[in-house]
Amino acid sequence: MLATLMYGAGDVRVEQVPDARISEPTDALVRITRSCICGSDLWPYKSMDAEAHGRRMGHEFIGIVEDTGSDVSRVRRGDLVVAPFVYSDGNCEFCRDGLHTSCLHGGFWGSDDVDGGQGEAVRVPQADGTLVVLPVAPDDALMPSLLTLSDVFATGHHAAVSARVRPGATVAVVGDGAVGLCGVMAARRLGAEQIIILGRHRTRTDLACDFGATDVVAERGEEAVERVHALTGGHGVHSVLECVGLEAAFATALGIARPGGTIGRVGVPQVESLPGARDSFLRNITVSGGIAPARAYIEELMPDVLEGRLEPGRVFDRSIAIEGVPDGYRAMDDREAIKVLVEL
Amino acid sequence: MLATLMYGAGDVRVEQVPDARISEPTDALVRITRSCICGSDLWPYKSMDAEAHGRRMGHEFIGIVEDTGSDVSRVRRGDLVVAPFVYSDGNCEFCRDGLHTSCLHGGFWGSDDVDGGQGEAVRVPQADGTLVVLPVAPDDALMPSLLTLSDVFATGHHAAVSARVRPGATVAVVGDGAVGLCGVMAARRLGAEQIIILGRHRTRTDLACDFGATDVVAERGEEAVERVHALTGGHGVHSVLECVGLEAAFATALGIARPGGTIGRVGVPQVESLPGARDSFLRNITVSGGIAPARAYIEELMPDVLEGRLEPGRVFDRSIAIEGVPDGYRAMDDREAIKVLVEL
Repeated sequence: MLATLMYGAGDVRVEQVPDARISEPTDALVRITRSCICGSDLWPYKSMDAEAHGRRMGHEFIGIVEDTGSDVSRVRRGDLVVAPFVYSDGNCEFCRDGLHTSCLHGGFWGSDDVDGGQGEAVRVPQADGTLVVLPVAPDDALMPSLLTLSDVFATGHHAAVSARVRPGATVAVVGDGAVGLCGVMAARRLGAEQIIILGRHRTRTDLACDFGATDVVAERGEEAVERVHALTGGHGVHSVLECVGLEAAFATALGIARPGGTIGRVGVPQVESLPGARDSFLRNITVSGGIAPARAYIEELMPDVLEGRLEPGRVFDRSIAIEGVPDGYRAMDDREAIKVLVEL
Repeated sequence: MLATLMYGAGDVRVEQVPDARISEPTDALVRITRSCICGSDLWPYKSMDAEAHGRRMGHEFIGIVEDTGSDVSRVRRGDLVVAPFVYSDGNCEFCRDGLHTSCLHGGFWGSDDVDGGQGEAVRVPQADGTLVVLPVAPDDALMPSLLTLSDVFATGHHAAVSARVRPGATVAVVGDGAVGLCGVMAARRLGAEQIIILGRHRTRTDLACDFGATDVVAERGEEAVERVHALTGGHGVHSVLECVGLEAAFATALGIARPGGTIGRVGVPQVESLPGARDSFLRNITVSGGIAPARAYIEELMPDVLEGRLEPGRVFDRSIAIEGVPDGYRAMDDREAIKVLVEL
């Protein structure tokens, strides 16, 4: 089968790999129908040291169950399913607390002997815990939006939940990538009154406004902080969604958080420590969030997508076939595309 | 009148200063009957550069209202009052949210032209918002415990609230100083089931056990992390109260927090950045807390003290007169005393 491997910074290849197959009784074999490229895939795309064997890529997918292990009972052959970007058993103490990313029997796609999502098929460990059946056909027009439940919309929602977005809250979203845009939608869904998107790419901030942003701040750094303060009566916002991961983005998030406010961070941190330890202490800023337990949110978010109230799939502005994945990485890295959908 | 001034590291003096007096219509003049030395006073005691004019010290006190400005209506001459360690108007948007430490008209004792609490009298700005009347006599046996509402018990409580201590929770308290000990009591009060105190001073950890600690961990660093994991089924605690402020204490707090757990930090940070940005991200650890809005908690905590259910005043293990304050600093810095009470 075909799958995507990264061999180093800028070096993505689609190659023949051994066919995915069931190896544990809790596995399912899923033939992928939709996948995509994640903003987080761009971190290794920018910086990965060359490796001889390549790393299997992709962690967001929808597909059809082709086979199941003997212990699998919740999904069946022929089901159309969406997978969260971390697999999990759904039964351990962390899964029961809604923190499936810390599942005692979970793990990441593309690591060890688990396939990546940017390929033709995947062995799905812990299939009963991991997969969610979709009540639509594989060619349904909702595919792009349903695919966002795998990661990007769930991650935007986790940012908003972690930032304690409440009805009537003032919110700022740092980053106009696909996660930031979904964060805007999630904040709106949770009842935020004012939603400020910080971003400088017009097509993205326009989409943010469609998703519910009330204000756009194109400035950066200290100027952005001043603008947000000016837009919020001088004190900053209750909730900040940090959707980038760079130190400068965190510093901006801290600068625009109101005293007593909360930062929900979902940008994969590119730093080892968080600045502003004294400032956040003196102003009682809470820093929450992390890797999103997408599995915990899928059932909650799905009805809004199925019933057409929300269209997070609009973050996909390019569709490609599997062979086009390397150019998809390039397009996202060059900011030609917000997020690239892979149709199989 | 007599007041305490710090002229540099290790250089504390009790000297004559101009009498405190009312200067604004919202002021009260309070004759101090009880004051104390705070663990946070030891930071400048260890490190302050020499200053020619000295810095007025002290921010915890009980006293009797001697006079009030024309706009003061909630407290009256003759009232016995306790003051939180930050003054505040009680009316601004932050005070209404319970974050009196960010009051738009608030400030710190001993700064600008405001007296410090380690002296004979204090001009109290924003007296109506700041002071809380105590329904007991100035020589009541409850004085030590009531004085802890000014800072140390309120700060321990803030650590517990910020760390989201809930009934049945597992809790660890990093630091066996007076704040940590009060944190144990606060965690117990909020219903924690297991409370692990991390500390190596036997008299202090014994008191922690009296206050509700269920386990004592005397190890430090990686060994302490291992011990806490062993005591909690391998995953760490739901809530960590970080009551020190040093980088090593924060690193320990992070190491013992369970995935999805929360750190409530109240130790004044002695670092500019918080380590473990990736670890806390991958495990969804929330970092909350900061300078405690003691004023927000006084009414809530006071009944347990007045009715004798809690005795946070047991953290005071030495009483001195005002002239003894310099030696009180030395005793606390040498760890001869947990916390020193000043009787006037």
